[in-house]
Amino acid sequence: MNRPRYDTALPLSGARFTARYRIAAETPAAAEEAARALAVEQTIEFPAELVEGTIAREVVARVESLQETAPGVYAAELSFAVELVGGELPQLLNVFFGNSSLLPNVRLERIGLSSELARRFPGPRYGTRGLRRVLDVPAGPLLSTALKPLGLGPEELAAMAYRLALGGVQLIKDDHGLANQAFAPFEARLEAVTAAVARAERESGMKAVYAPNVTAPGEETLRRARLAREAGAGAVMVAPGLVGFDRMERLAREVGLPILSHPAFLGGFVPKGDGGIAHYALFGQLQRLAGADVVIFPNYGGRFAFSREECAQVNAGLKDELTGLAPAFPAPGGGMSLERVPEMRELYGDDLIFLIGGALHRRGPDLTENARHFRRLAAEVK
Amino acid sequence: MNRPRYDTALPLSGARFTARYRIAAETPAAAEEAARALAVEQTIEFPAELVEGTIAREVVARVESLQETAPGVYAAELSFAVELVGGELPQLLNVFFGNSSLLPNVRLERIGLSSELARRFPGPRYGTRGLRRVLDVPAGPLLSTALKPLGLGPEELAAMAYRLALGGVQLIKDDHGLANQAFAPFEARLEAVTAAVARAERESGMKAVYAPNVTAPGEETLRRARLAREAGAGAVMVAPGLVGFDRMERLAREVGLPILSHPAFLGGFVPKGDGGIAHYALFGQLQRLAGADVVIFPNYGGRFAFSREECAQVNAGLKDELTGLAPAFPAPGGGMSLERVPEMRELYGDDLIFLIGGALHRRGPDLTENARHFRRLAAEVK
Repeated sequence: MNRPRYDTALPLSGARFTARYRIAAETPAAAEEAARALAVEQTIEFPAELVEGTIAREVVARVESLQETAPGVYAAELSFAVELVGGELPQLLNVFFGNSSLLPNVRLERIGLSSELARRFPGPRYGTRGLRRVLDVPAGPLLSTALKPLGLGPEELAAMAYRLALGGVQLIKDDHGLANQAFAPFEARLEAVTAAVARAERESGMKAVYAPNVTAPGEETLRRARLAREAGAGAVMVAPGLVGFDRMERLAREVGLPILSHPAFLGGFVPKGDGGIAHYALFGQLQRLAGADVVIFPNYGGRFAFSREECAQVNAGLKDELTGLAPAFPAPGGGMSLERVPEMRELYGDDLIFLIGGALHRRGPDLTENARHFRRLAAEVK
Repeated sequence: MNRPRYDTALPLSGARFTARYRIAAETPAAAEEAARALAVEQTIEFPAELVEGTIAREVVARVESLQETAPGVYAAELSFAVELVGGELPQLLNVFFGNSSLLPNVRLERIGLSSELARRFPGPRYGTRGLRRVLDVPAGPLLSTALKPLGLGPEELAAMAYRLALGGVQLIKDDHGLANQAFAPFEARLEAVTAAVARAERESGMKAVYAPNVTAPGEETLRRARLAREAGAGAVMVAPGLVGFDRMERLAREVGLPILSHPAFLGGFVPKGDGGIAHYALFGQLQRLAGADVVIFPNYGGRFAFSREECAQVNAGLKDELTGLAPAFPAPGGGMSLERVPEMRELYGDDLIFLIGGALHRRGPDLTENARHFRRLAAEVK
């Protein structure tokens, strides 16, 4: 039977980008078949025998290499034509892991960008060096904490922020559950907390920024971030799992404040079984691709069950070379205590943000004194 | 030591909404502790001993019930104050499963809405009945397919759409990889395909709609959807995993075309181990909450390893009572064949959309004839 075979009239540039996948398969032949199926799934999602020419040669992803890395585990390197992306981040994520997110035996391990993509998505606007300049701290770990509990009003949150900044906490962020609730409306909170942090800065002579949570519906994210910039907050926080990585990328490009990325609703992608997105890519590379300067994630040994090795991978994904994109700060948190400062400094290195929550409040009634204690501890470790 | 204890000055309304979680725990005591920790994690994320009054009683989630449902598996029903949501979908999702998405032993199983939330998020604008009215098909399964492979230009895609609509395919959607690439720019594609589908409608006397993919960065999603409405496309498709559920919700509220939800990049949340979001909630309830009229997901027995029972759960999540929100159509796809029509009809019932891809092209060179064959088959099953 003669079937139509599809081709494209458009010549492609030949420029390609890559991704590395982990494939679980029982035999080398099954792995090869899975890799070829993945190449089709992520691109044409169409019977391969019904395409020809440029579509068959260049639009379908190419399996550049396939290696067994452990018994039953394979590393497949695929390459894709840059034209598939059309310059848009949602489609780039779709090419990396759209349908394949639904495949139980495929994990996205690493992304690779072409120079064209790196120009289109230039990554963190500040990165580690830029944020150090903003905070006037050329070396050593930085300190961060969140304003909570939910239920407090703008003035109470501002009073808390003042005491923390006075004690030397450099990045004071909203709890990620603070949105625009009646008990702490965004604009009133922004105004009160920004003023409180500025007052603490004047009194202490130490720099501090406030990162209000701008995770919000649609354009409201951008509008709140612009309000934060105008108010002089100094940074913003957003949860890309809730609003999409492309909204974070727009914040970097259109608003221009340092960005803290929060992991809420991203947990689904943490590898379980043989699927998911590896920690290196999920909390490291993809975050930089979408413009995060600081990435919050659960520290090992806390209540979220990330391992030490997984956290080391996050750290590497934030700092390894990635087509010239700036490295970003890891901000491990989630049930950490003051005692863990030295071992964390050893694992993550100098470019590290200690994100401390409950422990800062549990230590005693004087938040400023607690913060000073924490700052001394952090400054002492080498 | 005297510590400050936090409370809120704001009285709450007392209105609450619920969620049911599956908790894996070794003992009843461990399950109870995990449920209490979850109640704190999803709300104040702060030492419970440092809050009092309204915050302790109403802001912290309440564990309404906890039951062992199988050895080592517990069902915990939590309730939350509606004031925590602030009327915003990202924050509602955050309350349901923000940080807890990162907990390996907690799965979101079902959501429950209060009447306030159902007013704020009224769900599918069309639902099953509305879409049947649009397509003028009062009963029986509907037919859908995607325009592919990637690489074809607007005129080629339009020619394909014409042949498919002429054969009786009622919902013709873009491949989810079609964004705004140079080989098929959105606006040229929209114009060409919409005109082709309209011509087929006139010639065949059967209704059909085109659902262009509007998954795109930021406001571009909304802009493209409005263009689709003006052009008369009849529907739109979006991937909430890539751009956020709240962007889909805005499409429903602000654009008003029927919405097809695509599962790209949502796979991370499919339950693996003891975490994730149950199929019922992920592909059923949350999709309706965010306004989807048609939900695409991988059919059982295809290449994505969903089980028959999981697909039945999706179907139930799309159709069960949910505070008055309209039911939505399941559109199972992913490697399905014509032979499977009868068993699928039996599993999913009358309100079902057959989403068929490669099989429609593989059957033979005449797409219109293939579509007619498919339509006859679908009409015959009871």
